[in-house]
Amino acid sequence: MNLEMHPQRWGDPALATSLPADARGLVELAFGSDTRDGPNAVGTPPAPRIDPRLVDGLRVLLGGENVLVDDATRTLRTRGKSTPDLLRARDGDLSDAPDVVVRPGSTADVEQVLAYAVEHGLVVVPFGGGTCVTGGLVADRGRATGVVSLDLCRMKRLLAVDRTSMTATLEPGLRGPEAEALLAAEGLTIGHFPQSFEYGSIGGFAATRSSGQASAGYGRFDALVVGLTAVTPIGTITLGSAPASAAGPDLRQLLLGSEGTLGVITSVTVRVRPVPAVKAYEGWRWPSFAAGADAMRTLAQAGLLPSVLRLSDEAETALNLADPAAVGSAGDPGCLMIAGYEGEPQVVAARRAAVTAVLTGLGGTPLGEAPGEKWAHGRFAGPYLRDSLLDEGVLVETCETATFWSNREKLYAAVKFALEASLGEGTIVLCHVSHVYETGCSLYFTVAARGGADPLARWLEAKRAASDAMIAAGATITHHHAIGIDHKPWFAQEIGPVGVRVLRAVKAELDPTGVLNPGVLIP
Amino acid sequence: MNLEMHPQRWGDPALATSLPADARGLVELAFGSDTRDGPNAVGTPPAPRIDPRLVDGLRVLLGGENVLVDDATRTLRTRGKSTPDLLRARDGDLSDAPDVVVRPGSTADVEQVLAYAVEHGLVVVPFGGGTCVTGGLVADRGRATGVVSLDLCRMKRLLAVDRTSMTATLEPGLRGPEAEALLAAEGLTIGHFPQSFEYGSIGGFAATRSSGQASAGYGRFDALVVGLTAVTPIGTITLGSAPASAAGPDLRQLLLGSEGTLGVITSVTVRVRPVPAVKAYEGWRWPSFAAGADAMRTLAQAGLLPSVLRLSDEAETALNLADPAAVGSAGDPGCLMIAGYEGEPQVVAARRAAVTAVLTGLGGTPLGEAPGEKWAHGRFAGPYLRDSLLDEGVLVETCETATFWSNREKLYAAVKFALEASLGEGTIVLCHVSHVYETGCSLYFTVAARGGADPLARWLEAKRAASDAMIAAGATITHHHAIGIDHKPWFAQEIGPVGVRVLRAVKAELDPTGVLNPGVLIP
Repeated sequence: MNLEMHPQRWGDPALATSLPADARGLVELAFGSDTRDGPNAVGTPPAPRIDPRLVDGLRVLLGGENVLVDDATRTLRTRGKSTPDLLRARDGDLSDAPDVVVRPGSTADVEQVLAYAVEHGLVVVPFGGGTCVTGGLVADRGRATGVVSLDLCRMKRLLAVDRTSMTATLEPGLRGPEAEALLAAEGLTIGHFPQSFEYGSIGGFAATRSSGQASAGYGRFDALVVGLTAVTPIGTITLGSAPASAAGPDLRQLLLGSEGTLGVITSVTVRVRPVPAVKAYEGWRWPSFAAGADAMRTLAQAGLLPSVLRLSDEAETALNLADPAAVGSAGDPGCLMIAGYEGEPQVVAARRAAVTAVLTGLGGTPLGEAPGEKWAHGRFAGPYLRDSLLDEGVLVETCETATFWSNREKLYAAVKFALEASLGEGTIVLCHVSHVYETGCSLYFTVAARGGADPLARWLEAKRAASDAMIAAGATITHHHAIGIDHKPWFAQEIGPVGVRVLRAVKAELDPTGVLNPGVLIP
Repeated sequence: MNLEMHPQRWGDPALATSLPADARGLVELAFGSDTRDGPNAVGTPPAPRIDPRLVDGLRVLLGGENVLVDDATRTLRTRGKSTPDLLRARDGDLSDAPDVVVRPGSTADVEQVLAYAVEHGLVVVPFGGGTCVTGGLVADRGRATGVVSLDLCRMKRLLAVDRTSMTATLEPGLRGPEAEALLAAEGLTIGHFPQSFEYGSIGGFAATRSSGQASAGYGRFDALVVGLTAVTPIGTITLGSAPASAAGPDLRQLLLGSEGTLGVITSVTVRVRPVPAVKAYEGWRWPSFAAGADAMRTLAQAGLLPSVLRLSDEAETALNLADPAAVGSAGDPGCLMIAGYEGEPQVVAARRAAVTAVLTGLGGTPLGEAPGEKWAHGRFAGPYLRDSLLDEGVLVETCETATFWSNREKLYAAVKFALEASLGEGTIVLCHVSHVYETGCSLYFTVAARGGADPLARWLEAKRAASDAMIAAGATITHHHAIGIDHKPWFAQEIGPVGVRVLRAVKAELDPTGVLNPGVLIP
């Protein structure tokens, strides 16, 4: 796999494709003909705004081969992969490029870089897989002497496997497939497969509280972490002396979700499971989104979750099915649920039988494995389609939230209305429940709309309306995309002024001179 | 139930009993005849060391009936129920009595009391059920103008039930049985039954990360909390907009385990379940503690836990069985495991069958329900026996820890050795695994030894040795008893200097003048 994504698109540059001609026709029909040109040529980042002596100093610490200032390297460490990021990159705007990219090889290297940054007034942006969709890779330059992208790509070891405790300790630069390959050689898996899996890194999963598509079976990434080491400007901290403890506040939970602002996570110890012998994904049809969601809730509260459980609303079901008739009549495709089972054959069979009994009893219609396999096959492909649609001038982006079950319908309606009202006629809003808990669930929205003359401005306005709707409904501003810069105003509302003061105090203590990702996360 | 415990003993004063004469003979045989006298008469606390005008000021805020300075009330709010607490109380030492006990009735009342405390330099000690065993109810008086026990006994409402999300919002002063009774009227349960259940409070469970005897089935208390409100000296914070979120660090996890030092928890929203239709507890015999622990690990890692799962080591099994022959030969009683199942009949039957198959396959011997019922019947009685033994001059206390599975045997041996070496010949050290996780478990030690001339000094020395052993083994200093004052030195080692600085910074931000439980928790 190519570990470097296309600078203006998601994923492997070799997989960048245009929409087929017939699809292009459909898109024009749906969104009008005010389509834009495809992306411009990749621009050139501004020359490094850093005293060359500081770059030399970093070279002394890490070796010349691990301190890079060339345009290509800096371009690939510019921003993340939100639609606003892509729109800016397509316009050739590389103004947020770091001045220098450094590649530490160890916790000690990271300690040295941070000490150097503190001493010389540099800003440090930890970089894992570059998949961020909330602006978390663009630090506030302020009065800094330079912006350093701290690229963890050399820290890729599997440090330890504890087969008795079923834990593994991993370095942060491992991408999802690399970590899984190392563990698969031991017969183990983390079971963490977010849509960003192919590029996302272990450190990034921890720093952003990532949640995978099989979270119902394996747990959110933050729930899988039992220990971690993080380098802060005031010292290195190692936490995790037991699975659970009553030794004060759980400080692991301060570093999880800290998005590189409180420390650089240099190792993570996670729960692992045996590689599942069986993986089976199947489809279920529900007459309505509400009926399907109620079925999910019943399963969660009965302790009967499959490994994967997701539910598309009517619009997403209709659009995502190549052949809507497979789910229902063409006029009423209903709502598609995917249930996936992973594990030992007898465990899978027992769980599947129990879930099937519940779902059948609740009025679900089994659709067999074809829809499940189709979902599994395309599970990481969504972002490529976004690029192809952006090529056609169609604005595509996602946003997501979570709430308690009793608030699900209100939240769904409010966010959908906000997006449609903001983006106007012809806008398509799709939604699915991507993660479920005993007490609630997430809602994941995909939006497609005319790009118009200024798609970036159009999206920022729609995003603002959707975010306002989430907070007004009492929901969280993000279930698994994190805060970055984009979500900060709503995050401040969510945790309130006392919460903001706590975060600022922790930040001031751990990073008193503000070298770590300034401007990100902390309101 | 009497909600006020005996001032020198655990639990209901009406249930205080002496050891039967024959048991007394056995105790003399085991621990020698240097028995002490029973407790002295309850002493008198020092006169309130507070300006009466400050008491009058509190009366203006809360009404005279909710501001108490009488000796009896202050005596009942003096310290908690550790053996050192009891030994001091038995000696008539009430030097740690608060100067005044206030009883707020609402979050607004708590806000007023904290504001008043800040303004007038008072120290505030939140008080729930008074069951603390780590010194967390004795604040450092320092230069304070007075010590206020903030007794939450009037805040006992069930504020909300959300049947769809299966959550309930409770006030902090509800004792375990009161909360369960209110929920039972709705057909619901929290399922949190720690040994302190009869007196422990909802706020205390949250503030100390309590863990119940059915944690395998229902989860630790901190894992059950989805939302909370806490009053801090700089403002009130409400958290919990979703079951899980990627909105930054999980600040709920800072207040859980904060032991009244960062804020006063005034409401808690927890997951609830239907009251189980069936409760069945059974015994299993294992040839060794290691074999039983391995079986627990197998169940946890297979996702096949009963609701209750505990395992006594050889010594605890032998001692706690009235008829050791019931578990094995008199000479080799083996190790007793209790497995308990709670839920709907068909769910219980299925889980029980699956667990039984695993345990049988691993070499366990089923002992039927008699040992299970015996355990269930006596599950809250242990602390009463401690008092009866203290009456006879026998030193009895517990300590507990947790670690990952691969470290269990080393930790067990190290703590047992430390206790036996410190307390000398004739000391009895019992242990059980009280809580299990996929990646590890807790170890709960009970110690009985000659009290000698200065039992308090003897215990403090043994406790120091055991605590050193826990930290040296890389384990946590407490799985569910919390930090209080007693565990602070080891807590500092466990989280390291960076962790300590984080906690101090959060404390300084939320409680800048140090009115909340000074001296507790924060190293």
